[in-house]
Amino acid sequence: MAHISLPEGLPGIVGPMAYSPQTTKPLNELAEVILRTNASESLTQGERELIAAYVSRRNDCSFCSKCHGAVADFLLGRDNQVVAQTWADLDTAPISDKLKALLAIADSVRESGLSVTSQQIAAARELGADDRDIHDTVLIAAAFSMFNRYVDGLATWSPEDPAAYLGMGESLATRGYPSVVDPQPV
Amino acid sequence: MAHISLPEGLPGIVGPMAYSPQTTKPLNELAEVILRTNASESLTQGERELIAAYVSRRNDCSFCSKCHGAVADFLLGRDNQVVAQTWADLDTAPISDKLKALLAIADSVRESGLSVTSQQIAAARELGADDRDIHDTVLIAAAFSMFNRYVDGLATWSPEDPAAYLGMGESLATRGYPSVVDPQPV
Repeated sequence: MAHISLPEGLPGIVGPMAYSPQTTKPLNELAEVILRTNASESLTQGERELIAAYVSRRNDCSFCSKCHGAVADFLLGRDNQVVAQTWADLDTAPISDKLKALLAIADSVRESGLSVTSQQIAAARELGADDRDIHDTVLIAAAFSMFNRYVDGLATWSPEDPAAYLGMGESLATRGYPSVVDPQPV
Repeated sequence: MAHISLPEGLPGIVGPMAYSPQTTKPLNELAEVILRTNASESLTQGERELIAAYVSRRNDCSFCSKCHGAVADFLLGRDNQVVAQTWADLDTAPISDKLKALLAIADSVRESGLSVTSQQIAAARELGADDRDIHDTVLIAAAFSMFNRYVDGLATWSPEDPAAYLGMGESLATRGYPSVVDPQPV
């Protein structure tokens, strides 16, 4: 049971977002910019969602890791198993070396902003990361350190079955993060 | 030196906020709602800023703890030393028992959303906290777990001298968090 009274049957962050529309607006506008609007050839929408899913999984946030894992899967090709392989073994995962270097930065940010090292930044730059990629990686990792705590700090409910996240994954990938949440039970 | 090229002489979060206006807008809109718009007799603006400063200090974020400490000082009365006493000894600090219970929840959120216990929630409720107070405390603690990581994950510069934060404290307390940041060196 969640720590506050939330509408029934809404998964993860959707409950608090329906409860508190005035905070949902900037939260989803932030997600929209860092995951979609800012996407470029240098750091694609699928790669941004993979960073979000990776940080969430490392933070043990079941809802966010499954939800953004499903978005990343949709964007990177579900059959390619990129998300599952990244979780299983980062070193051998079928992603670019630049993205691996950015995931290392994201994992440090997740621990503490003070854990990021100049060596990690230099390594990412050598592999082609620019200021925008580094800024956005730090902010995505910081933002999901917030979203994960919001979801779990209120003890929200989340479906166990990965199939429950397929529709969410496609919707967030293609239609994005709405300023006003339509509360739909799953 | 910061990890990316930022305008010179801007303290803490002001550098990345000037660098990236498109993410600054939702970030400051979020701060405005959780720290000011949602303030009530039950959880005042000064108490919300104290939660933000407390979380930031526990996260070792020098800029955010000094900045929001200065905002809280301005709102709670600088001569009362509420912020300093809360940092020195939470048990004997001159704040309500309800706020102490909410700070305990905030400190758990800061560690991990999964660290918040039903006992902490029940204790806060017994002392008068309602759903809105609990929701907002969790979100303030989560949001500052983001802001702290954004500031330190980019290795931004922050002034050592507490006097440098007095003007910021008064401005943020009285004029709030602007959607567009005016880059002013200190």
